[in-house]
Amino acid sequence: MQEDGWFIHELRVRYQETDQMGVVYHANYLNWFEVGRTEYIRGSGTSYKVLEQQGLLLPVVDVTMKFVRPAKYDDLVHIHTRIANSSAVRLTFEYRIIRNFDDLLVSGETRHVWLNQEWKPVRIDKQAPELFRLLCCQSQGKT
Amino acid sequence: MQEDGWFIHELRVRYQETDQMGVVYHANYLNWFEVGRTEYIRGSGTSYKVLEQQGLLLPVVDVTMKFVRPAKYDDLVHIHTRIANSSAVRLTFEYRIIRNFDDLLVSGETRHVWLNQEWKPVRIDKQAPELFRLLCCQSQGKT
Amino acid sequence: MQEDGWFIHELRVRYQETDQMGVVYHANYLNWFEVGRTEYIRGSGTSYKVLEQQGLLLPVVDVTMKFVRPAKYDDLVHIHTRIANSSAVRLTFEYRIIRNFDDLLVSGETRHVWLNQEWKPVRIDKQAPELFRLLCCQSQGKT
Amino acid sequence: MQEDGWFIHELRVRYQETDQMGVVYHANYLNWFEVGRTEYIRGSGTSYKVLEQQGLLLPVVDVTMKFVRPAKYDDLVHIHTRIANSSAVRLTFEYRIIRNFDDLLVSGETRHVWLNQEWKPVRIDKQAPELFRLLCCQSQGKT
Repeated sequence: MQEDGWFIHELRVRYQETDQMGVVYHANYLNWFEVGRTEYIRGSGTSYKVLEQQGLLLPVVDVTMKFVRPAKYDDLVHIHTRIANSSAVRLTFEYRIIRNFDDLLVSGETRHVWLNQEWKPVRIDKQAPELFRLLCCQSQGKT
Repeated sequence: MQEDGWFIHELRVRYQETDQMGVVYHANYLNWFEVGRTEYIRGSGTSYKVLEQQGLLLPVVDVTMKFVRPAKYDDLVHIHTRIANSSAVRLTFEYRIIRNFDDLLVSGETRHVWLNQEWKPVRIDKQAPELFRLLCCQSQGKT
Repeated sequence: MQEDGWFIHELRVRYQETDQMGVVYHANYLNWFEVGRTEYIRGSGTSYKVLEQQGLLLPVVDVTMKFVRPAKYDDLVHIHTRIANSSAVRLTFEYRIIRNFDDLLVSGETRHVWLNQEWKPVRIDKQAPELFRLLCCQSQGKT
Repeated sequence: MQEDGWFIHELRVRYQETDQMGVVYHANYLNWFEVGRTEYIRGSGTSYKVLEQQGLLLPVVDVTMKFVRPAKYDDLVHIHTRIANSSAVRLTFEYRIIRNFDDLLVSGETRHVWLNQEWKPVRIDKQAPELFRLLCCQSQGKT
């Protein structure tokens, strides 16, 4: 975790992720956002797998993405992930896909709500206070 | 094509598109937007395949998506697609994924630019005037 | 369902299914086999969705695939599916992906076992006799 | 590269790769085989990306897969890849997906032919002798 709250995860582009334009098909960046989110949560000291085993779900409610330049097959890219906003019922992640340390390819945000296994909203400050503390505290570095 | 400019295409949810939450994985809706766009263009009297053969590309530059309710395996859904905005250099598509005719699952927009095979911007009113006419005229029904 | 037991389902190639070789990425044919299987079962008078709701699973235990010629973006292809072998505990499906009625692109087989929700083997002649009858009888036309 | 010719690459299961059975959807293992192949070739001292830039293609002509146990979300798995057979015109890769060092999940083989950019067969001993030497020599450890 960096001082400004970004967590960085490295990823190699798969052949399957390309399309006939010769670049990564755009929907794959949304998969990569999810990889970034998973690794962010792991970096915070828990894991999304454990959250689900505890009966919590964190589905996406909306997405924005901005495509600057495409990634290509076999590129090494870095997924930068941080929490942009966090409350007891909602969570917003922010992402940047970067190649060669300063070549911004894609940026975006995903907004989530905390649900239980019946897909009903839950307050995680009540239901999972330690988790709430872990995920709220990570975003303190952000302005 | 409907009076209000929406083109409707039916699609059956594949098992591969589900995830362990028991619903469609969210990135797949972005694939479906692309299916909707392809069928919209075909409905306009040309095809995206032919556009590419003519040396035109229409990559996505940004995306917004809003997830209301998830689709499930084997659901029959309808992708509603229309042109929200169109100029000689840009195109914005708008989408609604609907189940059972009035159950809105996902809505969204994708913004595109017209490029040539060297990934340079082109004016399609000059480069492909008939295409320009086809795609601009489809959006006239929209307020 | 044809006399020789083949069930045919039409499918349009999606842009997302292509790769930078300009053709369909090979793993997608395995997704299409599953689409063929789903439609075959529907054509038999039940549905895989209903089977799962009844607590049955039909996971793949092995696969063979032979790639003759690649499908391309926007191709209309036909998935031909039939049951090659069927017993109370196992099921083998056979597939042919065909373009333009006689252009064989891919052929293959998937072998499956019937499991319950605890992933234990079940005999469907006992557990689901009507289903057993439906799926065994479809293969009678085959030599 | 190990003494017996296996090259090992670690991979973390993505949420997107699961399906509603709660395990990895079977077609994804075929994507992982391709990741294993890419890393094997890199481990041999070249890269598939460079091969394509030199005008060579290595499409899959057939596949066999055997599914023993499913991988789950967030599992760390190891893709073991080696060359089972190699000639001037053909190449067969062999794979094992293993969890926790001895839990075999999936095994399989992919057979490939060397083609040029016009999709015509080429002899790589003539066309790319250094590559031929790299890939044939890796398989010498195999019985």
